[in-house]
Amino acid sequence: MSNQLFPIRRRGLIRCAVAAVALLAAPVSLHAQDDPLPSWNDGAAKRAILDFVTDTTTEGGADFVAPEDRIATFDQDGTTWVEHPLYGQGLFALDRLSEMAPDHPEWKDTEPFKSVLSGDHAAMAKFTEKDWMEIVAVTHAGMSTADFEAIVADWLPKSKNPVFGVPVTELVYQPMIEVMDLLRANGYRTYIVTGGGQEFVRVYSKDVYGVPPEQVIGSSIVTKYEMRDGEPELMREPKLFFNDNDDGKAIGINLFIGKRPRIAFGNTEGDKEMLQWATAGDGARRGFLVLHDDADREFAYGPANGLPDTSVGAFSQDLMDTANASGWTVISMKNDWNTIFAGDVKKPK
Amino acid sequence: MSNQLFPIRRRGLIRCAVAAVALLAAPVSLHAQDDPLPSWNDGAAKRAILDFVTDTTTEGGADFVAPEDRIATFDQDGTTWVEHPLYGQGLFALDRLSEMAPDHPEWKDTEPFKSVLSGDHAAMAKFTEKDWMEIVAVTHAGMSTADFEAIVADWLPKSKNPVFGVPVTELVYQPMIEVMDLLRANGYRTYIVTGGGQEFVRVYSKDVYGVPPEQVIGSSIVTKYEMRDGEPELMREPKLFFNDNDDGKAIGINLFIGKRPRIAFGNTEGDKEMLQWATAGDGARRGFLVLHDDADREFAYGPANGLPDTSVGAFSQDLMDTANASGWTVISMKNDWNTIFAGDVKKPK
Repeated sequence: MSNQLFPIRRRGLIRCAVAAVALLAAPVSLHAQDDPLPSWNDGAAKRAILDFVTDTTTEGGADFVAPEDRIATFDQDGTTWVEHPLYGQGLFALDRLSEMAPDHPEWKDTEPFKSVLSGDHAAMAKFTEKDWMEIVAVTHAGMSTADFEAIVADWLPKSKNPVFGVPVTELVYQPMIEVMDLLRANGYRTYIVTGGGQEFVRVYSKDVYGVPPEQVIGSSIVTKYEMRDGEPELMREPKLFFNDNDDGKAIGINLFIGKRPRIAFGNTEGDKEMLQWATAGDGARRGFLVLHDDADREFAYGPANGLPDTSVGAFSQDLMDTANASGWTVISMKNDWNTIFAGDVKKPK
Repeated sequence: MSNQLFPIRRRGLIRCAVAAVALLAAPVSLHAQDDPLPSWNDGAAKRAILDFVTDTTTEGGADFVAPEDRIATFDQDGTTWVEHPLYGQGLFALDRLSEMAPDHPEWKDTEPFKSVLSGDHAAMAKFTEKDWMEIVAVTHAGMSTADFEAIVADWLPKSKNPVFGVPVTELVYQPMIEVMDLLRANGYRTYIVTGGGQEFVRVYSKDVYGVPPEQVIGSSIVTKYEMRDGEPELMREPKLFFNDNDDGKAIGINLFIGKRPRIAFGNTEGDKEMLQWATAGDGARRGFLVLHDDADREFAYGPANGLPDTSVGAFSQDLMDTANASGWTVISMKNDWNTIFAGDVKKPK
């Protein structure tokens, strides 16, 4: 097979040619000289991905999967991009709160806004779910879906991860982009299945991951249909509609796709049910969990394997035991990835 | 362009070749000798569909739509298949109730079950939403999603429309199948957007319409994730999760696709918001409503245009006025369609 059948190795729009090849379901040979996963070190994780692709696309093979059933699902935070020290969407909520504060002088004396605006990180670390919902209610609702998209699109290039000092969209894991490209080049449709906001992720999913809006499944709030000046609008209400975490990930996959994924990638407790749902059916199926064990290049947190326990994105020893018992593959960022980010992003010393 | 670029004229699986051509976005020339809509009589409706396809797929044209934005949505009941004298899914619920009755002797004396089991059509015509929800609760819930699919698949070939005496899947409108095929051959993704049950329609959508499960948006009930004997199951609960009718159709389209359709087909009040949502954006957009004005070959009901008023699938004069004011095209079954059904199905005299 010629090079053009291999996935493009950069982020950006999916090309029609690639999609057409994918739908024609031509199996892609994996020659060493055309390594489709150059950011991966040789090892069990890389081998498991390559074998899965070969096994499920070899016509006549025992594990062949029909093109229409080639579904791959990826958690986002901590799986395809950085989630520390705070989820990307958390940074958005806090920036938006600061921007809106001049119009809300009462926030200076009202929790949870007071702690955020005064930069009281100790207090913020103790925020309850209810505190966060109050913040989401004022920052993510009360506008049309079109206005929300515009606000997110405007914020993205101005966003800044507090540790790396670069926009959140620069902190995407190159090895996972390569996996998505490889899967798509082999006829898989790649879905983001995130606990984060569906409409938030849809704003950049195509540019950043090559994943179109209709393949983003996430948490969502209630929307209300209204005619405004003769034009229909969907207004965002301050009320949770669907929580795409934990069991919600299996429920969401069934609701949006109606098919079980064949391969799924996650990194925390919240992804357990997605991996169970993906790997419990018949035929070739694979589950993967990213372990953040690379403090030098990214972050190190568990508490599995004795890594530090943190409030964002826990990988517990219990999850590690489940992974081992279930035959899921644990990806070590430190050992399995020779490159973490696309471009020149490096963690400041 | 050669014949192979034209849509297949029968129901069945989408072929990879057709899909690949669609994604390559080659505009399909519409030569008279290769009429892609042979079941349509020449007239304003047929011309509107053909012009829309040409206009939105001609590269460089003012109305060109990028392949990734080619979204088409179709209501099901009364738009792509027969909804009289009762919705297909209503027939399923009633058959299922009869089948389950021996295990529920108390139903003989309890409404709404009593009226159904005694065949009291006058009482059934007066059923409230709550009555129907009680019937749905016992016939559509309390089992896993996998079991529900198996029950529906088993029922379909045994189903019988009371007027036509044939299975519900035989009562699909051939002209609409041709429109779906034509749109897909031109790079459009075709979605069913139905007030009916999403998981019900997904069982047959691929075989009957060429629409895969992930492109069926419908009403749904709550599902609950459970581990049973070490295997994950999604259990169907007797509680509505999402009502995909009226404003729910616009909300559902945004939730599931995140893009506005360019072309939408419906037939009742419940489709109004879908057509508003589809046709209000920028660029070339088209809305269509099927008017059932053919009592000889199918059914005649309105009450628009003085047709009889019925309890199933009303097309009010108000909707007709909205259609005219909005530039939506009304499809007359009697005048626009020379064929109603695929195969040999005829209405008994």
